[in-house]
Formats: sequence, structure tokens, C-alpha cells
Amino acid sequence: MVTLSEVARHARVTAATVSNVLRNREKVRPETAERVLQAIAELGYRPNLNARALAQGRSSTLALMLSNIANPFYPEFVLAAERAARKSGHFLMVCNTDDDAQIGRAYLNQIAGTFADGVLVMNTDIAMNELCISAMHNGPILLAMWEHPEKPPALPCVAVDFAQAGALAAKHLLELGHRKIGMLIGDGCGGLQDARSDGFRAALAAGGVACATAQMQVRDSIDAGHEACVTLMKKHPQLTAIFASNDLLAIGAIQALIGMGRAVPHDVSVIGITDIALAHQVRPALTTVAIQTAAVAELSISRLIQLIDAPVQVPSMAIGPPPELVVRDSTGPCKARASG
Amino acid sequence: MVTLSEVARHARVTAATVSNVLRNREKVRPETAERVLQAIAELGYRPNLNARALAQGRSSTLALMLSNIANPFYPEFVLAAERAARKSGHFLMVCNTDDDAQIGRAYLNQIAGTFADGVLVMNTDIAMNELCISAMHNGPILLAMWEHPEKPPALPCVAVDFAQAGALAAKHLLELGHRKIGMLIGDGCGGLQDARSDGFRAALAAGGVACATAQMQVRDSIDAGHEACVTLMKKHPQLTAIFASNDLLAIGAIQALIGMGRAVPHDVSVIGITDIALAHQVRPALTTVAIQTAAVAELSISRLIQLIDAPVQVPSMAIGPPPELVVRDSTGPCKARASG
Repeated sequence: MVTLSEVARHARVTAATVSNVLRNREKVRPETAERVLQAIAELGYRPNLNARALAQGRSSTLALMLSNIANPFYPEFVLAAERAARKSGHFLMVCNTDDDAQIGRAYLNQIAGTFADGVLVMNTDIAMNELCISAMHNGPILLAMWEHPEKPPALPCVAVDFAQAGALAAKHLLELGHRKIGMLIGDGCGGLQDARSDGFRAALAAGGVACATAQMQVRDSIDAGHEACVTLMKKHPQLTAIFASNDLLAIGAIQALIGMGRAVPHDVSVIGITDIALAHQVRPALTTVAIQTAAVAELSISRLIQLIDAPVQVPSMAIGPPPELVVRDSTGPCKARASG
Repeated sequence: MVTLSEVARHARVTAATVSNVLRNREKVRPETAERVLQAIAELGYRPNLNARALAQGRSSTLALMLSNIANPFYPEFVLAAERAARKSGHFLMVCNTDDDAQIGRAYLNQIAGTFADGVLVMNTDIAMNELCISAMHNGPILLAMWEHPEKPPALPCVAVDFAQAGALAAKHLLELGHRKIGMLIGDGCGGLQDARSDGFRAALAAGGVACATAQMQVRDSIDAGHEACVTLMKKHPQLTAIFASNDLLAIGAIQALIGMGRAVPHDVSVIGITDIALAHQVRPALTTVAIQTAAVAELSISRLIQLIDAPVQVPSMAIGPPPELVVRDSTGPCKARASG
């Protein structure tokens, strides 16, 4: 194997100059750099870059592990997280665990403490004790988009008040006069979205509506939301509103209602949670509760960098900005109110 | 700094055992592993994992650099590529370059030859000569989704016959009797989609239609497609069909037409290229030309792994499966045919 010293001899420069050429060519005069590159090509030298990373210390790279990149919420989080990381001089690598705890574990073992100085973990189904062991051995892990601010986890996290998001959706439907309400509750990408549905139910109860008329657990996707909405409406044709625990399900529900000849929002109102880009792009545009994805991504990156720079013993929780109702065209007054 | 040997002494085991515990705990008896983990915790040992990666040699990690993770085509490619990589025992890290050549370059310098044994590059705006220099110094680079199979690049690639995709779209509209056709040509995520529009134009000409009635360059997004379609239809209200060089633009065009009171496909037909998941999820479901994203992703991963295992001097091009027309509900016969 050709060594760096041999390249240096061949190019009649010092090893440090070869190293400079490989790392940062601005420092070296163009003719010299040219000679070094020539020597590298002639000798077939392949720099041992793991050694280089080792010599330089800090790799300045963060990793983001997420469960399902095909769910459009995640790419939106990635985009904001990557921009925030870069602003702070860090790179962000993304690992898709494909909704599989085994794969998540394998990625974590592969990257934590090696490629990545710190890892953001989002809904990956990896057991908390495994994450804790990895954090102990391999460096900081931060849980992004923790759904239960009332129950802080054993690791640092950025939480979002999803119960409040559910409550805002319920209040909106109640104010519009809806009483016969169906629920589609997402189950996927890190488990059942129960904080959202609990918050929704509690707000309905506070508004004097005992509970939702009908509910179904649904895997997170437009197709699944479509199918579930057809089943729900066949069984409960009297529903005047549907709450979905995320926007994908809500968009699928709108498509299903249109397909069944039920106008949205004239016959049935639909509301989601998240505010993915698609929410304003579909027709009718989706009323939803925005969880401020970009702001939560930025906060998560900034907390992770703090953890890397100054590790703490006690896990701490930061809460993202409060969810906000975004009224668009998929919700309207309940026509059947008088008879409700 | 605590060393591995100190941990071994403290736990009364050999350094090799500590190493086994850190790498692969199945090999060590549970009591022993427990004692080692205890020692690690007590001494505050942090394994030097860059050194570990170095000792083990091959990191078995591939990287995928792409321009815009928020465009749903990319997450679909990522999902298929990650699954294919994993089947071959490789990890896949994703880097989003945010449509910025500077950022792409920085990521490439950061990962090529260090974290990643090989890099897939997709529409990143990094200059070809920079990619070639990186490939020479840092190991294999493969260009995925090369749009011009008639012009092989200076690096290995997997190409898709996008001109053929455009031609299939044109033939479909011609067969439906359309003659007054508008075009929305995507410009973003790696440049103008000219292979697609050239193929479309050539097939129109072969069908006796001199050229599209009207065309616009549009940034790749639903919102941009929406806006451009409004402009196009105001200027050319006689159009009976719209070809968009990708599905996002086509979906935006459908939304715009509905908003303007033009029924799709009754008044205006719309066709796209790609077949992203959203194409079958919107209403009306989008007629499009499928470019077999998953198959192209799998082929790209398999060629990259071949390159890593047996580097070649001569760049070679593989062609992905041929594009296929997928007829759904957004295209129909031209009503104005007699008067056209």
C-alpha cells in the first residue's frame, strides 16, 4: 500500500504539504498542489481517511434517525434540521430505519460515537433502555418530537404538546356546531398517536360532548386514511365531522368523502394535525393544527449541539412552540346542528 | 483520558473482551458483559470509535447525496435505496444539499472516503470535474438518475430514458385527440428537465403537431405548478391538455384548473412524469409516465457496490427499466377535436 510519505517523496514536498493538499488546497501554491495530485494519481495513493478523521478529532457531524422517510412530515423536518445544523457548522446525516427497531439499532451502533457526534432520534421503535446504553457509551442522543411533555423520558428531548393540538382541533369542531364526530387515529411511525386523541377526547368532554361517535386506528398514510374513512362513513353515515390525528389521514379522508359523493366541508368537515406542505396544496385545502415542524427541528438541533458541547448528567426536556389552529377550506358549520 | 486497557484491568478481563463487549455483546457471557459495562460507567470511559472503525477497515456505509429532500420523489428513492443497501449488508446515509452546489461540495468533502465507501449523487449541481476529482481521491461516485443516456457522463451512472418518458406522454395525448397542448417544464433539483420536454416535442412533431401551443419553465413544486398553470390558462384559454415534466407540477396544475372552474379531464387533460405515490392519491388520480423509481434506486445501489468491490478505470453506464405510461383519471378524449 502506498503511503503518504511516498507521495511526499515522489512530489518532492513534505508529508505536511501532501496532507494540506488533501485537506484544504487553498493553503498550498497551485503548482505544488498540481505536483502532489500528479504524484497521488501516479502512485495510486488512497488516503486513509479514517485515520485523518481520527487525527482531526471532532467530525462535526450530527445524525438524524427517523422511522419513515416516505411520510412527508419527515422530509420537512429533515430540511429544517439540516439547515439549522449547517448554520451551526455541522453536517447532518439522515438514517431511515424503515419502521423497524432492528434496523434502528443497527444504524445506531454503526453511527453513534463514530460518524456522528450526536444523534437525534425520532419515532424509531428502539427501546428506551437501548437508547440510554448507547447514549452512555457513544455520546449524546436527543429525542425529537417527544409526544408526552407530561412524562419526560430518560433522555434529553424536545417535546411537543400534542394533547393541546388535539384539544384545539376539538374546540374548532365544537365551535362549528359539530356533535357527531369520527376519529381516525394514526398508528405507525413510532406508535399510536394517543396524546393527540386523548387531548381531542378531553376537549370534547369539556365541551359537553361525551365522546367521539366512532373511531378507528389507522396506519399513517393517505391510502390508509382513505380506506378507513370509507369504512367509518359506511358504518356511521350520520357523522358531520372527522378528526384525523395527522394530515395524511385527513387528506385520505377528504379524497374518500369526495369519492363517496359527500362534499367537504358542506356535508362533512375534516381536520388534521401537523400542517405538512401538502395540507395547503390539496383541494379543498386542509384545516389543521400546525405543530411548527421547522421550529421544533431547529430547537432539536440547537439542544443536541449544546449536549455535545457540554454533556449533562440530568436529562432535560425542552418544549417546542405551542400548536396553532390553521383554518382553511375543509371545515365549515354543521348544517345538521338543529337536529343534532 | 481513560483507556480501554484500564477498563479491562478494572473489570478483570482482557482488552479483547472489552472490545468484544463494545462491538458485539452476544460473544461475551452476560455476567462478564455486565462487569465490563459497569467498569465503563465507573471510569467514564468513552471508546475512541474512529480508531475502532479504522481497526475494522471497511465501514460498509454508502452515502446518497440529493438536492431537495422536500420533493417527494427523493424520499421514495431514498426508501428503495436504503432497503437495497441493507439487503447487501450496507448502511445508507442521506445528505440533503438543499439545491446548493456549495453545500453539496462541503458534504462530498466531508463524507467521500471517510464515512462512506461510495457515494450516489443525484441532481446536486456539483460540477462534473469536482465529482471526478473526488472520485479519483476518495473512492467511487455513481450518478443516479442520469437524464441523458445518449450522452454518458465522465463518471459511472445509472441513466433513465427521460426522452422516452416525454414521448410516451405526447403519444397518449395525441391518441386522445389533443392538439392544443401546454407544457410546464420543471427547472430545479439539478436543472431544466429538457430531456423530457425534448422527447415530448419530438413525439408531437412525429404525430404531425408542430409544437406545443404554449410552454413555461417552472420550479419543481406543487405551488409553482399551480401558479404557472393559472398564468398559462389565462394566456391560452383554448388549451385542452397540459403536459408537465414531473408529477408535482401536474398535481399543482390540476388544483389550479379545478380552482378556475375547468373540469379535469372533461375540459382539460393533465399528464405528468415520475409516478410518485401522490399521483395515485390525489383526485382525480394523475395519469403519468412511471420512471420506476424503486427499480432505478436498486440498480444504482447494486452498481455502486460493484464499483466499491472492483473499481474500474472506464466509467460505465447502466440504463434503468423503460418508462411506462400509467393511465388514471386526469386524461380523457379531447372534446374540441372536431373544431381543433
